[in-house]
Amino acid sequence: MSDAGTSTDQFTVGLIQMTCTRQVSSNLDKATALIERAAEQGAQVICLQELFASHYFCQSEDASQFDLAEPVPGPITTRYAALARRLGVVLVVPVFERRGSGLYHNTVVLLDADGTLLGRYRKTHIPDDPLYYEKFYFTPGDLGYPVFDTRFARVGPLICWDQWFPEAARLSALAGAELLVYPSAIGWHPDERSTEGDTQHDAWRTMQRGHAIANGVFVAAVNRVGHEGPADEGLDFWGQSFVCDPAGCVLATGSAETDDIVIAVCDRTHIERQRRGWPFLRDRRIDSYEGLSSRWLDAPRTDQ
Amino acid sequence: MSDAGTSTDQFTVGLIQMTCTRQVSSNLDKATALIERAAEQGAQVICLQELFASHYFCQSEDASQFDLAEPVPGPITTRYAALARRLGVVLVVPVFERRGSGLYHNTVVLLDADGTLLGRYRKTHIPDDPLYYEKFYFTPGDLGYPVFDTRFARVGPLICWDQWFPEAARLSALAGAELLVYPSAIGWHPDERSTEGDTQHDAWRTMQRGHAIANGVFVAAVNRVGHEGPADEGLDFWGQSFVCDPAGCVLATGSAETDDIVIAVCDRTHIERQRRGWPFLRDRRIDSYEGLSSRWLDAPRTDQ
Repeated sequence: MSDAGTSTDQFTVGLIQMTCTRQVSSNLDKATALIERAAEQGAQVICLQELFASHYFCQSEDASQFDLAEPVPGPITTRYAALARRLGVVLVVPVFERRGSGLYHNTVVLLDADGTLLGRYRKTHIPDDPLYYEKFYFTPGDLGYPVFDTRFARVGPLICWDQWFPEAARLSALAGAELLVYPSAIGWHPDERSTEGDTQHDAWRTMQRGHAIANGVFVAAVNRVGHEGPADEGLDFWGQSFVCDPAGCVLATGSAETDDIVIAVCDRTHIERQRRGWPFLRDRRIDSYEGLSSRWLDAPRTDQ
Repeated sequence: MSDAGTSTDQFTVGLIQMTCTRQVSSNLDKATALIERAAEQGAQVICLQELFASHYFCQSEDASQFDLAEPVPGPITTRYAALARRLGVVLVVPVFERRGSGLYHNTVVLLDADGTLLGRYRKTHIPDDPLYYEKFYFTPGDLGYPVFDTRFARVGPLICWDQWFPEAARLSALAGAELLVYPSAIGWHPDERSTEGDTQHDAWRTMQRGHAIANGVFVAAVNRVGHEGPADEGLDFWGQSFVCDPAGCVLATGSAETDDIVIAVCDRTHIERQRRGWPFLRDRRIDSYEGLSSRWLDAPRTDQ
């Protein structure tokens, strides 16, 4: 595989969404098979969903689940680095990272198309909600918002809950990301699905499309699919992974019910064209943004 | 009019979108009539579109147009303060503000329901684009992102181009705004309407709905309508003013073609409910946002 990809105007994204079991080995094997199929379909930057190696264990607080964590580099990065090299594709691979005893992160690693481990991103914004007890498991990330020059594109990885924070998307874009990718595990509580389901799903898509528009970048969300947990409880993951362009138009969407591979061709000239037409980066008022580092602006503010 | 509005859970927003002529007096009269009708329909916080008193003069760079500017307080604020007092409604009134000779702003004033001038906001982010030559006319605002405790709601006024900047929405929300309102004058170049029109309009709505979701606030956009300029050139303003709730759901939308009054009842308990369900403000990583005050993060950043 030559470096031809970096000199062209296009790169092809492949998103792997899948159901998972409690058997790590079968999840890893399934991901491998789907990555191979995505590569056959022309995908160059292939992204897996959040915590793809396991079931979504954060539905309860159970210290024995820390057994699922592993170091970076470690078995998962070694295995998928070899796969990236063999297929000549970039892989965006989530890992439940064991940094030390009692110190764990929700992490994603970037593997270049020659198998090089380019680096990692640790989930910055950690949710905590019934059935999403992530603050129990994951120390908030401390690596900022790195971007990675892969063979095919400059990728800004973010993870799930990060997607609700315009700050994270902006910082990745300011670091030069062409593609923001959000490995995710978002779903409905079964008892909310009928009442809140459509609104929540639409909000999720709207936010991420908004990041694309505000920043003039491609955005990809890779979301877990299928039900996990007791039949009448647990979570219904939405699937519906998607890629949108810098105008916020959705290029491709995955199934709401089953494993799927979402492929989208991204033309990086669209980034330049979009930002010339709507030059928001020209006009940011950086002299006025200091308050964004505040928790709350307590005093009522007027100009009087 | 008692203060009953402040002790209830609801406030009613009224948006006035209208075509304008080059006759300031007729625009002012029309706005007055539409405000009266909106108040009859129950509106309590009534917002006018950007630069409602005149045609959208920024289609060319013409220094004589500075004659349209006036001080704050001045004739427009005096007139509409009296109207606010008479009707017992809050008015959000755009003014082309003359601050001094050679110093002009694109401003909005907040008039409380007793006619008090609560303060002003000056457009922070100034566009410049063919037919939108705003950098010629308007000095960028220097008042930050004030919010105003009106009789019926705490209002965070922003103006048009500000809507593309998540930073502005966030800062207003952190200052406690319950309602962000964007007086606007956005339209199509006639030669873009068929090719780009739907995408641009959808992006505009998506961004503002995103601000509502990210911040758990109500958002209102009040947009000019109708064609201004030569028949085969000029601008087709979109109208389609709308209000959305803190989940990003659109509550009401105005006409794409004609004068309209958009009324929406906003239940402020929805803000609390939304933020309890999706507690983004709890989880902002303010320790990691310093880069937002940078123009660009030049060095490729990785964790290696």
